[in-house]
Amino acid sequence: MLFSSASITVLAPATVANVVCGFDVLGFALHEPNDVMKLRLIEQPGVVLINDDEFNLPTEPTQNVAGAALLAMLHAIPEPLGVEVRIRKAIRPGSGIGSSAASAAGAVAGLNYLLGNHFSKPELVQFAMYGEEVASGVRHADNIAPAIYGGVTLIRATTPTPDIVALDAPPLFVTVVHPQIEIKTSDARKILKQEVPLRDAIRQWANVGGLVAGLLQHDYALIGRSLEDVIVEPVRSILIPGFQDVKEGSRIAGALGGGISGSGPSLFMLSQDEATARAVENVMHATYQRLGLDYLTYLTTINPVGCQVLVDEN
Amino acid sequence: MLFSSASITVLAPATVANVVCGFDVLGFALHEPNDVMKLRLIEQPGVVLINDDEFNLPTEPTQNVAGAALLAMLHAIPEPLGVEVRIRKAIRPGSGIGSSAASAAGAVAGLNYLLGNHFSKPELVQFAMYGEEVASGVRHADNIAPAIYGGVTLIRATTPTPDIVALDAPPLFVTVVHPQIEIKTSDARKILKQEVPLRDAIRQWANVGGLVAGLLQHDYALIGRSLEDVIVEPVRSILIPGFQDVKEGSRIAGALGGGISGSGPSLFMLSQDEATARAVENVMHATYQRLGLDYLTYLTTINPVGCQVLVDEN
Repeated sequence: MLFSSASITVLAPATVANVVCGFDVLGFALHEPNDVMKLRLIEQPGVVLINDDEFNLPTEPTQNVAGAALLAMLHAIPEPLGVEVRIRKAIRPGSGIGSSAASAAGAVAGLNYLLGNHFSKPELVQFAMYGEEVASGVRHADNIAPAIYGGVTLIRATTPTPDIVALDAPPLFVTVVHPQIEIKTSDARKILKQEVPLRDAIRQWANVGGLVAGLLQHDYALIGRSLEDVIVEPVRSILIPGFQDVKEGSRIAGALGGGISGSGPSLFMLSQDEATARAVENVMHATYQRLGLDYLTYLTTINPVGCQVLVDEN
Repeated sequence: MLFSSASITVLAPATVANVVCGFDVLGFALHEPNDVMKLRLIEQPGVVLINDDEFNLPTEPTQNVAGAALLAMLHAIPEPLGVEVRIRKAIRPGSGIGSSAASAAGAVAGLNYLLGNHFSKPELVQFAMYGEEVASGVRHADNIAPAIYGGVTLIRATTPTPDIVALDAPPLFVTVVHPQIEIKTSDARKILKQEVPLRDAIRQWANVGGLVAGLLQHDYALIGRSLEDVIVEPVRSILIPGFQDVKEGSRIAGALGGGISGSGPSLFMLSQDEATARAVENVMHATYQRLGLDYLTYLTTINPVGCQVLVDEN
């Protein structure tokens, strides 16, 4: 194994999981916002975490998303190694755009660079999933996979090992709105029905097939027609004020479609061009100003590379 | 509209529907077997059917799959028109490889040629679906779509109009075995559970996404991993003696995977090369000879064009 003595900076991107019909299986990475993480190897074995932001996340490694992911990774290495991580989060915890995944994915992508890229992407996904377990109790890869691979990813399976398919999507503009309300992932899971009508399930997998085909064939109209969720959205959208107004207004403004990002509260809309994405942002502004809710918006594009490692000048 | 006075011959192909995880949405056309249909326009308005085989199918147009499809098509034309159809079926009714769909699709593809290709493929699918209604009581497009479009098709939706996506698949060899037992489509439908666990549904749509991606990316290994059905096969395979032996033996022989064709009793297996497809055929021979069941096998490839119209020499 090649150890690097460099200090590096990782840009760990926000991600959208549960892409409409692709609940639990489809996700993509965003160009903005990014967490910024600085990593370097240190003499003392273990993980040292330093927060460089206002979120007061735990610095005890086993309680911290990045820490737990790094400990899993260190555990897979025979040598006793130490790593220091300084984290400046820009992706707000609880926003539904993969805040915890960014911390976990950025940490393992960074450490992997310092180890001479010893581990493969599927292995990095597995390590980072330990971080997700700290955040939500579930070792899921929905946001981890696009954060590690970039672009649009399909998680075909997570066991025995993650089977992740990178989908070569056409350029897409993404408008995200984060209404400042709290939805816990665990609560959002609880309200899902554990049995679904076969009829709805068939319609959902027809749309998943259509969405994957639309992405790979760069067929924007097919992408738009396939952005339909008959299973999760009807239940979860009730938790998000303004959902119907944003969705309908965005379609009228020309968006291909969209829905809940992750388990919410953020909503995302996909557009073929920037002007439409901006019109969608205006729909979001109008909706939440009318409702009197604080909110943030992002107008960005799909990030094809995922976590990006920059070597610091010493 | 351009009317042709020619007599034409249509080769209407067998098709595989319910492709493993793609229950109700994925199908493909085969090079063999084909029904052979001869069509010509006649003076007297309406449909005249002539059987040229041993199956004794009804010749009253409203009771006949091809007849019902043609009547639906004639109904969409302002002029009173007549068409004569002579049908020599090679695809056995009840085999599960789209016998009724071949009749319906072949009939409308043939008449459309005689009408100067007046109708689009989605329109032909809609007309042919009236034929399927005669056969099974359900106006489904699972076999019709690949018979009309050729290749591998995804039916993203059937209402308000069929939304059919042609998938550019890599070369695939298909081995089919038709054990000579009877399974009625209506019975096969009845034993399905109308509610499915969300967990299984998610796994199924992950596999549908994987299969569509594997086909479009020409990734044989991904196709193989995605050929998994956790919802329908566990229930329906019980109706088909030899199912597990064929499936497991075929995988051991090198097949990518496969399952029940349509609602059975035929089984199909996909292979990357002809030698493997032949080894799979030997597994099928061995299985049904051991069970003492009569059976037929076909070793063929995916037919990229669907129904083929040949103009007869006069």
